[in-house]
Amino acid sequence: MDADGGFGGSVGGDALGDCGMVGRGRRKRLPHHKKEQPRRNLLSMAKQKVYLEDLHVGQKFSAGSYEMTEQRMKEFAAEFDPQPFHLEEEAGARSILKGLAASGWHTAAATMRMLVESDLALSEGIVGVGGEISWPRPTRAGDVLRIECEVLEILPSRSKPMQGIARIRTTTLNQNNEVAQLFTSSVVVFRRNPG
Amino acid sequence: MDADGGFGGSVGGDALGDCGMVGRGRRKRLPHHKKEQPRRNLLSMAKQKVYLEDLHVGQKFSAGSYEMTEQRMKEFAAEFDPQPFHLEEEAGARSILKGLAASGWHTAAATMRMLVESDLALSEGIVGVGGEISWPRPTRAGDVLRIECEVLEILPSRSKPMQGIARIRTTTLNQNNEVAQLFTSSVVVFRRNPG
Repeated sequence: MDADGGFGGSVGGDALGDCGMVGRGRRKRLPHHKKEQPRRNLLSMAKQKVYLEDLHVGQKFSAGSYEMTEQRMKEFAAEFDPQPFHLEEEAGARSILKGLAASGWHTAAATMRMLVESDLALSEGIVGVGGEISWPRPTRAGDVLRIECEVLEILPSRSKPMQGIARIRTTTLNQNNEVAQLFTSSVVVFRRNPG
Repeated sequence: MDADGGFGGSVGGDALGDCGMVGRGRRKRLPHHKKEQPRRNLLSMAKQKVYLEDLHVGQKFSAGSYEMTEQRMKEFAAEFDPQPFHLEEEAGARSILKGLAASGWHTAAATMRMLVESDLALSEGIVGVGGEISWPRPTRAGDVLRIECEVLEILPSRSKPMQGIARIRTTTLNQNNEVAQLFTSSVVVFRRNPG
């Protein structure tokens, strides 16, 4: 895969819908002449593109927010995690979660949304190969989540000169600054120039 | 929390909706008299309840399936992981994922759904405290996923005589028996009798 350095620095808009996010209002329309390059009109155009050379250990960034509405929380659970404590207040109150709680996978998905909208505009997108996830506390209806990220490690690939892996810890916090999720992921990162 | 041994062996139905699952047709209506116990009419009634004593290292079970439809895959991505390779065929083909691919979080959520519908009918529900996740290969539109689980470890709690942690590896496979996701989780498990 070629890393595409030509559009570093472009600031445009994305074509993504608004799905209940409390966003930061960054979206702008692309200038008309940009539309002649339809193959580049997506995420890669939205923000300054980030390459491996732009990352360093200890680097931090934050993003969000995502409001966990009770309705969406229950819908998500009904589709993907249909357990009583994710679906009904009373069952939640009686459960180990001590109250109606979002599925951890809903918190994880919301975290991904915030990461995609963050400044981690990796040149080829955010593709995780895996990671460690934990949910120290439940996410509740009405919680407003945000993320704080830190680059923990950068591992150049030995066999692929144009890429590497960044280990990034994404902490998902609620409006009371309590940690709802920790996710330390290994993300594929491309170089601007061969390493 | 009390472990409730009184309903072990009950087989009833759950009140959960059908969300595009290719299910195993297990759902049955509860007999009328059971409805007089509304606090127990949910997951805990659906299947033989499973306690820590019922688990052993090396124990395996499987469940599924879940069909990854192109429409739901794109909708999920638009809401939670709006990156071009999850939204458009052409962008997918040009990407590191080499084709339109589901968000890893959609695969994870689908896996949870299958786990909830599996025989791992833990007495107090399936509550994971965390785990390690990886996606060795993308899930594609039209893939039909299933899960295979194995109990790796059982750790009684030192401080809580009624509970412990089970380490369970859930492998998510597609219709070609290729691994789409590995998730090794730590799940809270309650005892039938104090340890």
